[in-house]
Amino acid sequence: MSRLIVQKYGGSSLADAERIRHVAGRIARDRRAGADLVVVVSAMGDTTDHLLDLAAAITDDPDPREMDLLLSTGEHISGTLVAMALHAQGVEAISLTGPQAGIRTDTSHGRARIATIEPARLRAEIDRGRVVIVAGFQGSTDSTFATGEVTTLGRGGSDTTAVALAARLKADACEIYTDVEGIFTADPRVVTDAQLIPVIGYEEMLELAHQGAQVMQTRAVELGWVNEVIIRVRSTFSDHPGTSIQEVSAVELRDKVRAMALDRKVAKVTLIGVPDRPGIARAIFGPMADQGLNVDMIVQNVGHDGSTDLSFTVDRTQLARAERLLELLSKDLGFAGIATDAAVAKISIVGEGIHNSPGYAAQMFGALADEGINISMISTSEIRITCIIAEDELDAAARAVHRTFRLQEPETPDA
Amino acid sequence: MSRLIVQKYGGSSLADAERIRHVAGRIARDRRAGADLVVVVSAMGDTTDHLLDLAAAITDDPDPREMDLLLSTGEHISGTLVAMALHAQGVEAISLTGPQAGIRTDTSHGRARIATIEPARLRAEIDRGRVVIVAGFQGSTDSTFATGEVTTLGRGGSDTTAVALAARLKADACEIYTDVEGIFTADPRVVTDAQLIPVIGYEEMLELAHQGAQVMQTRAVELGWVNEVIIRVRSTFSDHPGTSIQEVSAVELRDKVRAMALDRKVAKVTLIGVPDRPGIARAIFGPMADQGLNVDMIVQNVGHDGSTDLSFTVDRTQLARAERLLELLSKDLGFAGIATDAAVAKISIVGEGIHNSPGYAAQMFGALADEGINISMISTSEIRITCIIAEDELDAAARAVHRTFRLQEPETPDA
Repeated sequence: MSRLIVQKYGGSSLADAERIRHVAGRIARDRRAGADLVVVVSAMGDTTDHLLDLAAAITDDPDPREMDLLLSTGEHISGTLVAMALHAQGVEAISLTGPQAGIRTDTSHGRARIATIEPARLRAEIDRGRVVIVAGFQGSTDSTFATGEVTTLGRGGSDTTAVALAARLKADACEIYTDVEGIFTADPRVVTDAQLIPVIGYEEMLELAHQGAQVMQTRAVELGWVNEVIIRVRSTFSDHPGTSIQEVSAVELRDKVRAMALDRKVAKVTLIGVPDRPGIARAIFGPMADQGLNVDMIVQNVGHDGSTDLSFTVDRTQLARAERLLELLSKDLGFAGIATDAAVAKISIVGEGIHNSPGYAAQMFGALADEGINISMISTSEIRITCIIAEDELDAAARAVHRTFRLQEPETPDA
Repeated sequence: MSRLIVQKYGGSSLADAERIRHVAGRIARDRRAGADLVVVVSAMGDTTDHLLDLAAAITDDPDPREMDLLLSTGEHISGTLVAMALHAQGVEAISLTGPQAGIRTDTSHGRARIATIEPARLRAEIDRGRVVIVAGFQGSTDSTFATGEVTTLGRGGSDTTAVALAARLKADACEIYTDVEGIFTADPRVVTDAQLIPVIGYEEMLELAHQGAQVMQTRAVELGWVNEVIIRVRSTFSDHPGTSIQEVSAVELRDKVRAMALDRKVAKVTLIGVPDRPGIARAIFGPMADQGLNVDMIVQNVGHDGSTDLSFTVDRTQLARAERLLELLSKDLGFAGIATDAAVAKISIVGEGIHNSPGYAAQMFGALADEGINISMISTSEIRITCIIAEDELDAAARAVHRTFRLQEPETPDA
């Protein structure tokens, strides 16, 4: 049996006819080398934004069910064009919508989860010798037109489609093509000597994605982890092998920091003089969650004289809404004041090695102190250390921390 | 039970957000007046041209199956936007794709015929009190995502969708909304005192559409005729009742010319000295049909000395291709020469009364002669007389013929 590869191409790789022909050329090359191929596509370039604009011109409160039907057209368009470009290069190909490809989801419009994949049509098309193009980011709630509603999977949905298909079809490889060459030790636009990471563990990748690395969405990484799908992130525009996201064996769990993540889109909120009693955290964060406000790091100082200060971070775009809600809550909950800072940023180091080496935290704090950078909040997980600092000190902090952990040095096996 | 109305809105009625809101306002008004509504939509303004351009940038030989999946997105987009605009006006509504609406077709991509309509989903949505928006111009070959391919119905497909739905749902009315107020006795841009026709027979409408009237496509009229669906053509932008296309009772088959059709996109071909033997017409027109060349009027002069002249009309855009083919054929078939004229036009009069009154032909020829206009070909049917004349004389001809048959006078019942 031939080797089966699932590939996914993002919107910037399909932005115009020339890029679509280029992508078709890559697919054709792999097909001629003998592989069976299932290719997941995102919508072309700015198509999704264009569709969102159309809806926004009609209503500021679009029905999620109609929105999904509207947005799903973007991937239908790119899928048919990639199929046509393959035909023009003499390659047998067919494009399928997510529903046609058998992707069944729950009914949560706009952020549906894949429930199952019915692979009969996909397998039949592969067996007919065709490259199968699948519209990413979408599925349907049932298998007939009369009963099935079109759903979309939310942010990073096409990555999720690719990983789920690779798991269901027991593919030999899952390749995510994008406009960068892989996962780097830091954002190369900030840290010029950032290194490409050849192999990274699922958990490390998840922490990086959570802390602001843009390349892969967390849901796709989680799905890969659960299903043991090895995910290769690589560039549409080069032949570099890229980064492999996979289970890292115990032997490889080196005592090392692997990469750094930066996030500028952060704001900090401090509630001053919060009464120190059971249930107070739920009384604050419950209403925030109900309003769709994403609270990230939470730090509570030790209380004295019956009250405490509580700090947390929110998406900077949600700060104004969070402040309005908290002012309403302050009357009921009796805290003394609200202080906010919209000019903060997050810097994180990630690595399986961190939980074996408590010394890393001290090294990170030391690197920041040597640059004269003040840390206003700290949060840690087993494999991550995150600091909140002033946004205008982020670039200097990034370079200092990168150097401290010698991330600019190419990885070599431990001696 | 409520009155059920099927409405269809064309692309120019849905060209931008403002027009979509206007259309939603009309629908909302009819809904509030108590009607159940199924609304068929075309793609917005130039969406279909944009999708065709995308495909043309990839290949000049697109696969019809992929083309259908690509083009079908245009009506999905307009359908979801109309549904959203209805929601914004407080009207319960849902948009369905053609496949979701149960429209099943044969497998002829790009020009599929509706085979059946499975109405369960439509009826269920109507029973839930929703206005149902249906993407026009499309269907699927089967009822499940895994087995059903998306098809399109070709030119005028959305009109066909509307009439087919009205027939299947036994609707009380079928309203085709467009950017003119109805069917006129002549093109009002050419004949300024052209009159709106309140009622016209199916056969008369078919002849008008065949002879160049742009408002309704012939397939939708045929379908209405077979299923006895009364079709009302009216304007999206006024409250004029428009034109009703319906069976006209024998009493109403007045001895009258009803309307005139003009067609400028015509070219005339004459084959000179064609051998006068059996099978010669098939030997000429068979290869032309195989190449997709549409031959319309054919006139063969009486032959003498063993050969004859044969004239026919073709679409002007196909003239060059027709000439190339005919030059190839001339060697085998032995005709003496080919003469072409790309500057001709068709003028037709249509009316159920024509077959009762042979005098109408003489009146039409007389009207043209009085203007000094030469007739180069004549063709007639039971209810139609068509002349080919020079294109630059068409406007003068139109005004003279319109006046001769007193089409500028509002219709009144016969005494």
